[in-house]
Amino acid sequence: MEVKLLQSTDITGGTFTLSLIGMIGTAVLLFLGTGWVSRKWKLPVALAGIVALLASAYYWQAREVWLAAGQMPVIYRYIDWLITVPVQVLALYFFIATVARPPVGLFWRLLVVAIVMILARYMGEVDFMHPTLGFLIGIVGWLYILGEVYFGKLGEINSKSASETVQTGFFWLRLVVTVGWAVYPLCYFIASFAGGVDEGTLSIVYNLADFINQILFGLIILYAGVRESASAR
Amino acid sequence: MEVKLLQSTDITGGTFTLSLIGMIGTAVLLFLGTGWVSRKWKLPVALAGIVALLASAYYWQAREVWLAAGQMPVIYRYIDWLITVPVQVLALYFFIATVARPPVGLFWRLLVVAIVMILARYMGEVDFMHPTLGFLIGIVGWLYILGEVYFGKLGEINSKSASETVQTGFFWLRLVVTVGWAVYPLCYFIASFAGGVDEGTLSIVYNLADFINQILFGLIILYAGVRESASAR
Amino acid sequence: MEVKLLQSTDITGGTFTLSLIGMIGTAVLLFLGTGWVSRKWKLPVALAGIVALLASAYYWQAREVWLAAGQMPVIYRYIDWLITVPVQVLALYFFIATVARPPVGLFWRLLVVAIVMILARYMGEVDFMHPTLGFLIGIVGWLYILGEVYFGKLGEINSKSASETVQTGFFWLRLVVTVGWAVYPLCYFIASFAGGVDEGTLSIVYNLADFINQILFGLIILYAGVRESASAR
Amino acid sequence: MEVKLLQSTDITGGTFTLSLIGMIGTAVLLFLGTGWVSRKWKLPVALAGIVALLASAYYWQAREVWLAAGQMPVIYRYIDWLITVPVQVLALYFFIATVARPPVGLFWRLLVVAIVMILARYMGEVDFMHPTLGFLIGIVGWLYILGEVYFGKLGEINSKSASETVQTGFFWLRLVVTVGWAVYPLCYFIASFAGGVDEGTLSIVYNLADFINQILFGLIILYAGVRESASAR
Amino acid sequence: MEVKLLQSTDITGGTFTLSLIGMIGTAVLLFLGTGWVSRKWKLPVALAGIVALLASAYYWQAREVWLAAGQMPVIYRYIDWLITVPVQVLALYFFIATVARPPVGLFWRLLVVAIVMILARYMGEVDFMHPTLGFLIGIVGWLYILGEVYFGKLGEINSKSASETVQTGFFWLRLVVTVGWAVYPLCYFIASFAGGVDEGTLSIVYNLADFINQILFGLIILYAGVRESASAR
Repeated sequence: MEVKLLQSTDITGGTFTLSLIGMIGTAVLLFLGTGWVSRKWKLPVALAGIVALLASAYYWQAREVWLAAGQMPVIYRYIDWLITVPVQVLALYFFIATVARPPVGLFWRLLVVAIVMILARYMGEVDFMHPTLGFLIGIVGWLYILGEVYFGKLGEINSKSASETVQTGFFWLRLVVTVGWAVYPLCYFIASFAGGVDEGTLSIVYNLADFINQILFGLIILYAGVRESASAR
Repeated sequence: MEVKLLQSTDITGGTFTLSLIGMIGTAVLLFLGTGWVSRKWKLPVALAGIVALLASAYYWQAREVWLAAGQMPVIYRYIDWLITVPVQVLALYFFIATVARPPVGLFWRLLVVAIVMILARYMGEVDFMHPTLGFLIGIVGWLYILGEVYFGKLGEINSKSASETVQTGFFWLRLVVTVGWAVYPLCYFIASFAGGVDEGTLSIVYNLADFINQILFGLIILYAGVRESASAR
Repeated sequence: MEVKLLQSTDITGGTFTLSLIGMIGTAVLLFLGTGWVSRKWKLPVALAGIVALLASAYYWQAREVWLAAGQMPVIYRYIDWLITVPVQVLALYFFIATVARPPVGLFWRLLVVAIVMILARYMGEVDFMHPTLGFLIGIVGWLYILGEVYFGKLGEINSKSASETVQTGFFWLRLVVTVGWAVYPLCYFIASFAGGVDEGTLSIVYNLADFINQILFGLIILYAGVRESASAR
Repeated sequence: MEVKLLQSTDITGGTFTLSLIGMIGTAVLLFLGTGWVSRKWKLPVALAGIVALLASAYYWQAREVWLAAGQMPVIYRYIDWLITVPVQVLALYFFIATVARPPVGLFWRLLVVAIVMILARYMGEVDFMHPTLGFLIGIVGWLYILGEVYFGKLGEINSKSASETVQTGFFWLRLVVTVGWAVYPLCYFIASFAGGVDEGTLSIVYNLADFINQILFGLIILYAGVRESASAR
Repeated sequence: MEVKLLQSTDITGGTFTLSLIGMIGTAVLLFLGTGWVSRKWKLPVALAGIVALLASAYYWQAREVWLAAGQMPVIYRYIDWLITVPVQVLALYFFIATVARPPVGLFWRLLVVAIVMILARYMGEVDFMHPTLGFLIGIVGWLYILGEVYFGKLGEINSKSASETVQTGFFWLRLVVTVGWAVYPLCYFIASFAGGVDEGTLSIVYNLADFINQILFGLIILYAGVRESASAR
């Protein structure tokens, strides 16, 4: 594969580059940030930084593939999501764990559900599974995660014991998981059932969604961590 | 794309290389510098370091494109600016936030205006928008930012509460934003309306402007941070 | 070798990429983690991080080889294992050494046995040695290591003097070494004696085994280290 | 450009490689060293480390160019020097600033003179300026810098207030700037006026001069910084 | 040069890869280790880490050259040794300097002798000098270094003032320099005088010798440093 020149009106290629450098910048900021927060905040900030780092690795190769081949096979995205989405879900768990320790079983349930959700979507999209089935399993997994963060133990610890800063942070994190993550099943639905969607347009939506979701996710955790660490002194 | 030899009289290619290594050096210095400043100064110094790092990434590929293809499509620059310019504007915000907390709304206004300013210039330059309209929106965005740092809340906190070092630093930062940033609309104007400007010459101007603006910007913040952190002991 | 596009249904290529980014993420987390644990825990955490880093290097090139040549010569894996397996065995030693110092002779025995185990398997698989002999030596080496961690000095220190956290961690580490490591002789057996196994399928099994074994191994050590370091305050 | 094999008797290619790895090693040592020195010594040590890092970047590409094209256009060197020489001159300034603060005007004069010196030499060598004129401006700039470090404010602070270690360090730094830097105008003179000098031979001299000058420069600063920081306790 | 696939029975290529990842792992461990040892131990540990890092850089390119060209010109090795061997000799000096300061003159003598030793071997092997002369100068240099560490000031400080840990460490370091380093003149002798030695076989010996010597060297220093730093508390 030989990388070609990025044309000035190639918005798709532009958003691949944009997400790449946005993720690099976020990863560096969050890794520096692990040194600015107190002990218990280091893990969630580091996990968010790792998500941004791995997303950088994905966008690095995705950009090259796009500039060389003019396409973006879905498997690249799903491999990235198969790691970054579960890690983000666990970051929610460890975010709340700075307040009070949630049950260990919840950790494993969230991990498994997040992995199943991504795997089902992948299998549906490449026809290893009926697209509708993959879509539905993905939706159910997502709803389960939403249930846990709103009405489950995580939501309960947050509303009962968290400081104002943590509550604000958790409010925004939930918003990302609810509204921001809605883009993915939506794009899946359009790509699989509505038909005739241009791959380039779809990539723009995915790139901007990743850009906003993953960067916002990391910055919210860092913000809460830095403020809580400062006030704890 | 195959990179060719940099010819000894290729000033354009030379300034791409110059900016590349200048940015790398600045990024390293600023990241080391986050360890030399006190807690509240870490964020502005880190943001300036990230600007230099992302600019290094841009100049890395820009240099390769120039040496391989002998041209530099504007989209490469705009993707870089779309992240580095807003981050620089926010660094101004957090620079002043070391003195007293500015209103949160200002944070979002500065962020949005900076993004719109760059997007408008890009759309004007690649004819997604009438060049004159893109130019004007870009100018208005720039004037808004200047208004905030001179007469808005940031300027007010600076003149009322800042130490002498911070005031000196802010004076220089404003100078960069006022005089240094004037190069960009000027080059836009010449490239779009005056016509017949050689792409190589334009690149030299942009490269040197970036070199001076972004490096100076970072060093001023580091200088203020180090001096303030030393005197706070 | 020219890297080709990863096809959306190439599960083998997908698991190479998956292991690559999983290992990178784990390496970064563990290296950050060396800063979160107390003095005596730094070495085992660092060793686990180095295992993940070297595995990343292996998967980097393995992925390129697969995408370029569509095959994965076993020598690549054995070179990786020749270093990462002994280091993991020594990490077990240093894990227990945080409780009480095991005999130095055991260190050397474990090191030599682990190296011999991998070398024998390699020589058996490339026909430098009779496949059955290589298999048997490999099995004996593995059983010796299991004997040491269950009934030898390491097991003894663990059951007599370790805190609950360390005991839990050691239980899981032993599980990885017992159940997780069983995959390797099994795959060797199938590849050498059962015949007709597709190289792509075998790679998937190896990739997922490495993914789970090496990442789990590192996270268990980090978990024990962080909890012990916190409780020691 | 395709890199070819380095032949066993290619002394020029060998010295490119030698300088490359020498610079990498020095950069790493100095960056680690910033953690071993006290607060005021961090800046000069970091600047020397950045010089070595940027020189590594130069030698990385110079080596590739030599192995691919068998030549070394002077512009590569001058871009490197245009940043590393001024930074080294400023490192002298900050070296003395650990004793007593020299006037700020001197900082700017040294910076401008160092840049002009390199620019003049470059313009002379590529015939943008008469070679003799470029040579003379370069010499005058060098003499000015020598004047400042021997008889100017820097020399005065050194001889009046510096500890024995700093005086020894400054003695050696001056030696590098006086004797070591004499190689550059000499080579310029020979290349421009004496004629018929083989590019490969010239490169060997430049490579060894850079190797010794830049590495020695950095190690002297680190040596003084570490000893002063230890005695300050 | 285009890198080809590493064949499963290419032991030479395998040992290049093995040394590469062994050196990377060692470098990372030693650099992390500089943070675990007390102030005076940082320099020897860092120097050993730099040796491993530069050896990684060598093995990186050596592996590529081998896989692309199927040969390994000696100049690559000698450039690596020209820096890593003197640095290792100086690491011996600074190892003992943690006990008592050896004379400064010895530092310079060891440095010069180590450089001359490697240069002479190189010149002998590429016929810039009579092979016998190069061999003899190399042997004399080695014997001089052995004399210094056994009967000179370094040995004297060790036997008179060093703690048990340092004495044990120094015993092992001397063993590496005596027995481990004997491989190099031996291979030189065989390659130059015995004739008919296969380049691939020679490379295996060199690779394994480097692997054991340089890694063992670093780990011994780290071991002594960590134990001494712990007992000093």
